[in-house]
Amino acid sequence: METRPTRFETHPSRYKHWKLTVDGEIATLVMAVDADHPHKPGYELKLNSYDLAVDIELADAIQRLRFEHPAVKAVVITAEIDRVFCSGANIYMLGQSTHSFKVNFCKFTNETRLYLEDAAEHSGLGSLCACKGTTAGGGYELALACSETMLVDDGNSAVSFPETPLLAVLPGTGGLTRLVDKRKVRRDRADVFCTTAEGVKGKRAKEWGLVDHVVSRSAWDKTVAERAKALAAKQTVTRGPAFELKPLEPKMSDSALTYQYVQLTIDAGERTAQLLVKAPDKADAFDGAPASEPWSLRAFRELDDALLHLRFDFPDIGMIAVRTQGAAGVVAASDEALAKAAESNGFAREVRLLQRRVLKRYDNTARSLYAVADAPDACFEGVLLELALGADRFYALIDDKISVRTSAANAGFMTTASGLSRLAARFYGQPDSVQKVLAAGGEGPIDVEEAEQLGIVTIAADDIDFADELRIAIEERASLSPDALTGMEQSLRFVGPETLETKIFGRLSAWQNWIFTRANSTGEHGALTLYGQPERPQFQWKRT
Amino acid sequence: METRPTRFETHPSRYKHWKLTVDGEIATLVMAVDADHPHKPGYELKLNSYDLAVDIELADAIQRLRFEHPAVKAVVITAEIDRVFCSGANIYMLGQSTHSFKVNFCKFTNETRLYLEDAAEHSGLGSLCACKGTTAGGGYELALACSETMLVDDGNSAVSFPETPLLAVLPGTGGLTRLVDKRKVRRDRADVFCTTAEGVKGKRAKEWGLVDHVVSRSAWDKTVAERAKALAAKQTVTRGPAFELKPLEPKMSDSALTYQYVQLTIDAGERTAQLLVKAPDKADAFDGAPASEPWSLRAFRELDDALLHLRFDFPDIGMIAVRTQGAAGVVAASDEALAKAAESNGFAREVRLLQRRVLKRYDNTARSLYAVADAPDACFEGVLLELALGADRFYALIDDKISVRTSAANAGFMTTASGLSRLAARFYGQPDSVQKVLAAGGEGPIDVEEAEQLGIVTIAADDIDFADELRIAIEERASLSPDALTGMEQSLRFVGPETLETKIFGRLSAWQNWIFTRANSTGEHGALTLYGQPERPQFQWKRT
Repeated sequence: METRPTRFETHPSRYKHWKLTVDGEIATLVMAVDADHPHKPGYELKLNSYDLAVDIELADAIQRLRFEHPAVKAVVITAEIDRVFCSGANIYMLGQSTHSFKVNFCKFTNETRLYLEDAAEHSGLGSLCACKGTTAGGGYELALACSETMLVDDGNSAVSFPETPLLAVLPGTGGLTRLVDKRKVRRDRADVFCTTAEGVKGKRAKEWGLVDHVVSRSAWDKTVAERAKALAAKQTVTRGPAFELKPLEPKMSDSALTYQYVQLTIDAGERTAQLLVKAPDKADAFDGAPASEPWSLRAFRELDDALLHLRFDFPDIGMIAVRTQGAAGVVAASDEALAKAAESNGFAREVRLLQRRVLKRYDNTARSLYAVADAPDACFEGVLLELALGADRFYALIDDKISVRTSAANAGFMTTASGLSRLAARFYGQPDSVQKVLAAGGEGPIDVEEAEQLGIVTIAADDIDFADELRIAIEERASLSPDALTGMEQSLRFVGPETLETKIFGRLSAWQNWIFTRANSTGEHGALTLYGQPERPQFQWKRT
Repeated sequence: METRPTRFETHPSRYKHWKLTVDGEIATLVMAVDADHPHKPGYELKLNSYDLAVDIELADAIQRLRFEHPAVKAVVITAEIDRVFCSGANIYMLGQSTHSFKVNFCKFTNETRLYLEDAAEHSGLGSLCACKGTTAGGGYELALACSETMLVDDGNSAVSFPETPLLAVLPGTGGLTRLVDKRKVRRDRADVFCTTAEGVKGKRAKEWGLVDHVVSRSAWDKTVAERAKALAAKQTVTRGPAFELKPLEPKMSDSALTYQYVQLTIDAGERTAQLLVKAPDKADAFDGAPASEPWSLRAFRELDDALLHLRFDFPDIGMIAVRTQGAAGVVAASDEALAKAAESNGFAREVRLLQRRVLKRYDNTARSLYAVADAPDACFEGVLLELALGADRFYALIDDKISVRTSAANAGFMTTASGLSRLAARFYGQPDSVQKVLAAGGEGPIDVEEAEQLGIVTIAADDIDFADELRIAIEERASLSPDALTGMEQSLRFVGPETLETKIFGRLSAWQNWIFTRANSTGEHGALTLYGQPERPQFQWKRT
């Protein structure tokens, strides 16, 4: 493990950087970054600049609004510092971070912003970014992820992307993609905007489509209230009943993270890990307000937390064997109950949406993932079968007691970033193969040999060969270059149509990855390295 | 300029690495790489490995088949070395190349393979890759770009992507994308394939969809002939009349490349260049077999050649001012004549397709492009207006004598890599704005102020401000980090839907760019650096 485990769990009562208040249909989330509480020592979070600690709280707030405050239909994201909304990701933090941390930080913040959009699109929770002052870099990227953006018209406050002109990097949290693909800002104007460090303000910001509204200081509070109310009135999806998200509090040691249903076990010497997800003892029922946390929610919150620990705390662990465990039929029954309840119960729908987001986080985790079914109680069914379909490979032991099973969770709702289901992505361009799997699954468990023939299992072997074959495959994978594997997996996992999401993770992040390694940004004389110092950066001029 | 200008022009009579023969409807292109004639000294091109010199000849051959051999409906790409088709890009060449060269080499080879697909899709020229032996890395990527692929079934010959397991890089010429997106190989099988250095052969290669046919040695020649004939019979597009592509032979100095219609002028001190394209004296007519080379073809072949010189020979020149010159109406008239002729004349259609490819090469050139209309004879009309629409910005002087004009070339045929026209990409999601521009253009020249209002011109200024504004914009652009600009431009230029092409250039190439800079591939102990040496690579294990 890195020097200490990162703590992804938090609660509004412990927030250091945001203030969450709820008033009827409207919530307000005030960014008030405490400069003295950065994620790691070594820099101050001045001017509402943010780091991982700040973004973990934001992610928590969005999640809690969805589950704990179903009456809220619009959230206003704003700040209370004079003349500053947010100055973006903290540059000194970036400058002193490892490449691996920088990339994973950007990935997490990207996911958080996509969750804001997901909540607006699917959960009746619109967002209004009320920028009453400087809105720079990641601050503007946060605004771009909101349903509506207001900028104060005070002759001074601008939205800006100073990354390229000042730091020799890209706006790395979806900004470039959202400018042209989401907001449809004309690309030549986007070019001017992204190379103008001071940004664009006032009427021009509105005319270019960079913000939705420019509003004077005098009309500010009134307009914020009006717009938030109008945004709330537009929502058509109803959430609830309310459900409080209780702490996960895994047991942590140097080699294991143990939750109720999820266990992550690290073999540091081999640079491998096992990720185990257990089925519940009995199927979830979704009738009315939940008395206790259903497995369908708890297990996926745990999985989410485990994936984040894996990304941030175990960067050397490249190869993950994913196993499942449980009695047959229970997960499939939970999935069916959940899918049925989701038709009318907002809480159940939120649970499904959360499962979908967690599975996307899994797809987007830059580690080799081999699903392994090699024990009689392996339980790749329904929503847990998605872990096998999302993995790079699926190894299964040919054994009478081992089978896989489909459920409502495999039929289309659990889309990947491309918008395809995992079955549709696996059988890209061959919808018949998807239908065959679902038809076979509709008749009951699918044994390993049939699953191999249907194309679900990558490698099926009997007990004479299985253990050796798996061991060698894992050893080989763990011996390959982690960089090449990341690039390869990114190219193979996201087959099919591209979306805002796949563009952000596949294209923008790849360019940023490259730019972060270049001397022009992070070298001794690079712009990111020298930020805030009197020395000017020196560039190598070769274009590529 | 780099040590010497690269020579992109060639002719079958001068080929060192390929043999082109034509027999009725079938052409054969035999890869027979001369190990002793690499592009640069320092490595031998053994086992039909290739470098830029080899690929320049391949690109030339495809172009000439389209124009000079219209009767040919299928080209067989094969080799005559015993038990080897092609072993891919030469590793020693890659190992000793600069990052900038590697990236531009991959870009050129990617374009060449896309041209094979373009010829099959639009020009009635199918391709059969007949792999009678080892087909590794770039060799297999060439096969993937062909309409059909045959692999010999001799118990030994395999298709393979050894890049990740042996070299710690990616198959960088579209291989990963074509595997899953074009050939729809199941992604878990693609994962196994891409990490298995020895590749996949025989029945399994066919079953997994890696090749279309596996054929025994004894049935080989007969089957090649049959398949080629069948492929030719499937073609429905007719090319011709034949037209011989005469040499371009620009005048070259250290600071200028001068063609008949195109001039590239370098200011090495400022790291800027001017790319000037001149209109013809009188409009092209397309009536029957062309007596001499029409401007519509010649100017775009020259532009293509100039862009390649810019990429390879002037890597430090980051900022290009693009100007046009000519009498009003002549280009638009040529475009109209060309578009009309293309409905029935195969040669005219080929000219349009070539213009489209060259404009894509322009879009995909990693330099900042500012179109500039600042002289009374500026001629941004029709197909030359595409240069302004494809540029990052368009600066125009407000002057009675300066205008822009649309033609049939702006109406949809000249698609970018995303499949959108440049007008549709500029006004992404706003089809009304496209129609407004075309409607205004239909009424005649559009003056600069109207063009700015319509959204074609980025910055319009009068003669008091124009020169200073442009000078400062160019100086500023030339002062920014070339890496950040490349990533930014790639993100903003390719707005909208993704395609195989945009995935290859935007996603796959971005990952490869990053991977090429990593110590695990190109560092002192990296796998690419140490290839062919007894020492084993040492990897840094952090995943990103």
